[in-house]
Amino acid sequence: MDISKAKDIIVEFIREKTTEAGVKGAVVGLSGGIDSALTAYLTVEALGKENVLGIHMPELTLTPAEDVLDATEVAERLGIEFKTVDISEILAGYLNSIPEGSESNSQANGNLKARIRMSVLYYYANIMSRMVMGTGNKTEILLGYFTKYGDGGVDLEPIGDLYKTEVREMSKLMGVPEDVITKAPSARLWANQTDEDELGITYELVDRFLALLLEGETPQVAQNTLGMSVTQRDSVLKRINANLHKQKAAPIPELKSLR
Amino acid sequence: MDISKAKDIIVEFIREKTTEAGVKGAVVGLSGGIDSALTAYLTVEALGKENVLGIHMPELTLTPAEDVLDATEVAERLGIEFKTVDISEILAGYLNSIPEGSESNSQANGNLKARIRMSVLYYYANIMSRMVMGTGNKTEILLGYFTKYGDGGVDLEPIGDLYKTEVREMSKLMGVPEDVITKAPSARLWANQTDEDELGITYELVDRFLALLLEGETPQVAQNTLGMSVTQRDSVLKRINANLHKQKAAPIPELKSLR
Repeated sequence: MDISKAKDIIVEFIREKTTEAGVKGAVVGLSGGIDSALTAYLTVEALGKENVLGIHMPELTLTPAEDVLDATEVAERLGIEFKTVDISEILAGYLNSIPEGSESNSQANGNLKARIRMSVLYYYANIMSRMVMGTGNKTEILLGYFTKYGDGGVDLEPIGDLYKTEVREMSKLMGVPEDVITKAPSARLWANQTDEDELGITYELVDRFLALLLEGETPQVAQNTLGMSVTQRDSVLKRINANLHKQKAAPIPELKSLR
Repeated sequence: MDISKAKDIIVEFIREKTTEAGVKGAVVGLSGGIDSALTAYLTVEALGKENVLGIHMPELTLTPAEDVLDATEVAERLGIEFKTVDISEILAGYLNSIPEGSESNSQANGNLKARIRMSVLYYYANIMSRMVMGTGNKTEILLGYFTKYGDGGVDLEPIGDLYKTEVREMSKLMGVPEDVITKAPSARLWANQTDEDELGITYELVDRFLALLLEGETPQVAQNTLGMSVTQRDSVLKRINANLHKQKAAPIPELKSLR
């Protein structure tokens, strides 16, 4: 992949889609991670720094200090407006108000946090008449490794056709801070979470596996070619199938035959 | 439209889709309005009353008492599990935590409330391994008269191919309480909101207009046929076009040509 050409296509896409929608600006959630950093760099190149708002949304007891510092550094380097919204009180409001709400529902709480962040981004998008930029990459989208209507709830997905390994390449090209590029990817939805631990496979390997599948190889051949374990292969396939619904609009039963 | 046959198709659709997803139960937000009441009736017929949870999510200062009573009555008549989650404290948590959060951002707050309700429904869906049933009808969906990733954020849209006027017919057929059927439709996102005031047209009229457009008539002919004003026609067309993005997955720039 010619990463420089890919960058041009993405930048042009952001310009086109915002113009079509009749908006000038964008809101980007800056987690301190590489995907959102790259998205911010691309959006600034497309729309200009004065039209991009970066929002960091830490949870005070869980978000590591390095994320706060990295998100701030990205915003400063880009010269964009930057805000911090602590989601802890919002989360507590939900857990107090939902009779079954509990700190111990870790998966439900992880998804809830992603939905809180989506809601905050859209609050700003609404009051500023802007679009919400998604930060999902091709690997995450194919695996369904995101929260439906949470980090998946966005207006555009600028890096949605870049594998995670390509996100790294493009981030180097665009000058994203080195420590943002090299730190272990994590959705930070619970303590000590890392993507690769949770997925049970490295991004290097899963990206090559997904690319072979999309080229039409069978899972068996792809697994053999890459020297993957059966467990790795099956766990990736299971994830893809279980999460296909996240990529589609909610199904509607067709009544056309009765009209 | 044969409303009885339409009902059978929808009930079968709910059974099929939940089975495909490997879940037995559903969560439905019961606002006290007709759409969610009908959705609950259909879901109970499909899955059995023991597999349906109804959740009423009032905002204490805004939701009228009749909505609380109507939602409760629907749940009682159906014999389903029923919970009430007051969203006021959650909303206050957002407005306290967002520096620009203010009571006066009525549109942004309306959308935020819809996203809070979605987040609560998914909390229950997560901890109970259930699906979230949508309550959007064909009229709302075509007009984009819903909040993206709010009430639009659901797993299935059982009544998504029924016009609002058909929702009323089917509700009568199924025995939805009379006062739920006859009260003025309102999203209750701000005080004194009614759908027909906000849309500037009755559901009777807009449904016939939309049906003519889908049959291939030009907006001009449809307007003349129905004796609509130019303002009504243009306001409906504007709404459709402005909201088309709500029905689609977030666009991704294609990089296929570079691979």
